[in-house]
Amino acid sequence: MADKAQIQEAIKTQGEVVRKLKTEKASKDQIDEEVAKLLQLKAQLGGDDGKHQFVLKTAKDYNPKQMAIREKVFSTIVNCFKRHGAETIDTPVFELKETLTGKYGEDSKLIYDLKDQGGELLSLRYDLTVPFARYLAMNKITNIKRYHIAKVYRRDNPAMTRGRYREFYQCDFDIAGQYDPMIPDAECLKIVHEILSELDLGDFRIKVNDRRILDGMFAVCGVPDDKFRTICSTVDKLDKMSWEDVRCEMVKEKGLSEEAADQIGEYVSMQGGQDLAERLLQDPKMSQSKQAVAGLTDMKQLFSFLQLFQVTDKVVFDLSLARGLDYYTGVIYEAILTQTGPIPPPAAAEQNGAGGDEGSVSVGSVAGGGRYDGLVGMFDPKGRKVPCVGVSIGIERVFSILEQKAEASAEKVRTTESQVMVVSAQKNLLEERLKLTAELWNAGIKAEVMYKKNPKLLSQLQHCEDSGIPLVAILGEQELKDGVVKLRTVASRDEVDVPRAELVEEIKKRTSLV
Amino acid sequence: MADKAQIQEAIKTQGEVVRKLKTEKASKDQIDEEVAKLLQLKAQLGGDDGKHQFVLKTAKDYNPKQMAIREKVFSTIVNCFKRHGAETIDTPVFELKETLTGKYGEDSKLIYDLKDQGGELLSLRYDLTVPFARYLAMNKITNIKRYHIAKVYRRDNPAMTRGRYREFYQCDFDIAGQYDPMIPDAECLKIVHEILSELDLGDFRIKVNDRRILDGMFAVCGVPDDKFRTICSTVDKLDKMSWEDVRCEMVKEKGLSEEAADQIGEYVSMQGGQDLAERLLQDPKMSQSKQAVAGLTDMKQLFSFLQLFQVTDKVVFDLSLARGLDYYTGVIYEAILTQTGPIPPPAAAEQNGAGGDEGSVSVGSVAGGGRYDGLVGMFDPKGRKVPCVGVSIGIERVFSILEQKAEASAEKVRTTESQVMVVSAQKNLLEERLKLTAELWNAGIKAEVMYKKNPKLLSQLQHCEDSGIPLVAILGEQELKDGVVKLRTVASRDEVDVPRAELVEEIKKRTSLV
Repeated sequence: MADKAQIQEAIKTQGEVVRKLKTEKASKDQIDEEVAKLLQLKAQLGGDDGKHQFVLKTAKDYNPKQMAIREKVFSTIVNCFKRHGAETIDTPVFELKETLTGKYGEDSKLIYDLKDQGGELLSLRYDLTVPFARYLAMNKITNIKRYHIAKVYRRDNPAMTRGRYREFYQCDFDIAGQYDPMIPDAECLKIVHEILSELDLGDFRIKVNDRRILDGMFAVCGVPDDKFRTICSTVDKLDKMSWEDVRCEMVKEKGLSEEAADQIGEYVSMQGGQDLAERLLQDPKMSQSKQAVAGLTDMKQLFSFLQLFQVTDKVVFDLSLARGLDYYTGVIYEAILTQTGPIPPPAAAEQNGAGGDEGSVSVGSVAGGGRYDGLVGMFDPKGRKVPCVGVSIGIERVFSILEQKAEASAEKVRTTESQVMVVSAQKNLLEERLKLTAELWNAGIKAEVMYKKNPKLLSQLQHCEDSGIPLVAILGEQELKDGVVKLRTVASRDEVDVPRAELVEEIKKRTSLV
Repeated sequence: MADKAQIQEAIKTQGEVVRKLKTEKASKDQIDEEVAKLLQLKAQLGGDDGKHQFVLKTAKDYNPKQMAIREKVFSTIVNCFKRHGAETIDTPVFELKETLTGKYGEDSKLIYDLKDQGGELLSLRYDLTVPFARYLAMNKITNIKRYHIAKVYRRDNPAMTRGRYREFYQCDFDIAGQYDPMIPDAECLKIVHEILSELDLGDFRIKVNDRRILDGMFAVCGVPDDKFRTICSTVDKLDKMSWEDVRCEMVKEKGLSEEAADQIGEYVSMQGGQDLAERLLQDPKMSQSKQAVAGLTDMKQLFSFLQLFQVTDKVVFDLSLARGLDYYTGVIYEAILTQTGPIPPPAAAEQNGAGGDEGSVSVGSVAGGGRYDGLVGMFDPKGRKVPCVGVSIGIERVFSILEQKAEASAEKVRTTESQVMVVSAQKNLLEERLKLTAELWNAGIKAEVMYKKNPKLLSQLQHCEDSGIPLVAILGEQELKDGVVKLRTVASRDEVDVPRAELVEEIKKRTSLV
């Protein structure tokens, strides 16, 4: 390992690299990358006084307050998944390296490999979709509705400077199986609608498109076959770049003809609903593409189901939606928040399961997904396909919005669920306090007691205030003699003597109202 | 990468190595190790028809049935932790390599390293205790009661042959802070008692000892200071080896005098409760050791608290309990199941948070822990100590017992919570089914519908039987005309017409009883 002096020297050199790039007004990406290297070097050194020497720069801890928010979000999401009859599975955090190979295109460079310490070559999972497909093929499962909430890993260097982490949650719901067209697809959109409404993140919109419509559009606009994917990934930037810039990239960088680019430009500005699908089915150019017609026919069908589900108010058929991942084969969608509010760092936004998938996404994206009918077949020795459609909730972005909301709000976030604290104002009652606390625990009451022989009453009450414990059970010589416990309501400071035998019921009664 | 022929050659060679060892009657450990290598080679090759090529040999998936059991266990455990006022935190799956360095003694070789792909050098966490200590030091937290349920990673080679996995759950509860003696320690034992009772795993016993009593005992028995740790790890084997074998290892392998070994033998056969602590405080030899006296005094105090908590029926002061981890400084404990029942593979037993910690544990161990007052200080730049005591539930072993119970039982494990399935006996009612299903979802009912235009009634009912859905909502032309839904109870086959407006209430009423 490099010693301190070496690292300090390297930091100096790297600092100069960064300064030079800034002077030269180099691209943001380039500067970010070099700044990231600088931060890593500094991390190696530890903080000034060495106190940060064990602090990871690329992943973060969650404190109890963040966990309380996180658990509430998970519970809302899981309840929705369960309402829709989903089962859950779990897969290991690592997969065989070869399982991940060739699934993420250019982003494969972001995969974390484990060191070769003998045995199988392993990598940390990059998403939950590929492990799900591997699981289905391995177990010969041809239909399942499952959700999976777990962490995924991406070595995303430059973004470190924007507080973006390499470990983050994904929250996936997928339906695998051969069914009649667009019914599971519609349910996925219904789920996005339910979850975003329940999480109360403000207004949102769900953009929908279809890979076949995009491909058909490219074909009829005169994009050469071998340029479909690269032109598609340029179109995908429309949520962050102006049409002029996108057009320029297509023509200058990707060598598309100006005519083709302009025709694409006309289509990708179109937004609508079922009506748009119908109109495009009559479009003299689009109707020449079998692919486009298949996609548009399904789009019409999708909207008719969405009407039955009463979610068309938020869903828009948007021909500019592309999504980068290669494995999509049919409908694709992405949900964005439309309300301006406290804007979270772009970090979280880009790293949700939605847009994070392709590393290019609008700032407001909170969910995304689509149909991938070919992925399972890649893991099956005989190439047997299992059609799948799924959605991924961009949970990290949701956390960050709700954390900011919680901070802005006066209401305290409780990190425990304790209902009562057993206290005493007098000395030498530790045993009595412990005995009563155990009685409460045994009756299923969430109770705390201070681990001190003779704690001050004030510090016991202060703890209740701080952590939001609503009730205090006070024990003293007199109460013990009378066979009662003084039950105090923290908020109102009301006190009442409760016979000991009735204490559990009384606490249950009072805290069921809190 | 090696090609197929090379691997096949290596498999042949390795097969001969294994056969040779078996012929020579080599030690089980040695054979296991070579068999593991053989299995790894075979894994590289994939199955005969290539169908296992994406199957990890060292970690496993959980299917929906296993997940249902797992979630029930987690819920019992988390409820207990919450009842005791605990908060929860989360830490990344990887830590800086240096964070883990020097914490696990010989077992450090089992740490998974990530490949050096630039940036920080990382390792997968080996347990949850070291990350917890790092978290406390980093955030200058001096008191907290927290639980953490997460996966940990160990490159445990030989055990692969016994179905032991490299990824497994730990379930930790710890109390950090400077408090009056033995109160948090007693609460940890109370928690073990509550959890094991609630999980209904059969009878159990919790063995308790103290590092200071062990060290004092070694000192008065004449063990040289520099042999404390190694003799301690031999004593730790008493749950799997006879006293004769342990004595032999001490004398022959570790060079202890026969007298010292015999004196240790007398002590480690002692078991009791508060009475034994009192007796040993009077013991002419033990009472000479300050360490032993401090430990025994605390042990007396611990038992008096355990009496208040009414858990002494299961707790035994056992001088043979050693536990391998270096970081324990005071009380240590381990819970074992005493009932003979279906015996799970030793795999799971050795890998629970309890014994897994030291890689040597009795087969029946399901929980363990102790006091570690020095660990946090190792991460603090000024060495500031934060006393801690904690317990780890051996959850993998619990899963495996409950899975076997579930398999042996006639009762089906439900993997969804669906309350009702919306079906139709007639054709062309897909839209009506979807509309009703969405109404139910919107009202918070867990509902399923088949993704087919015209599914057969029988296959819809069969799905309810298979997955345990208790109710069926049947729609037909007549019902639609009458504004009712036919509600069928799957178990009894009773059917009744319910006005559509009352359907939600009726389903809620019926399923709250199920």
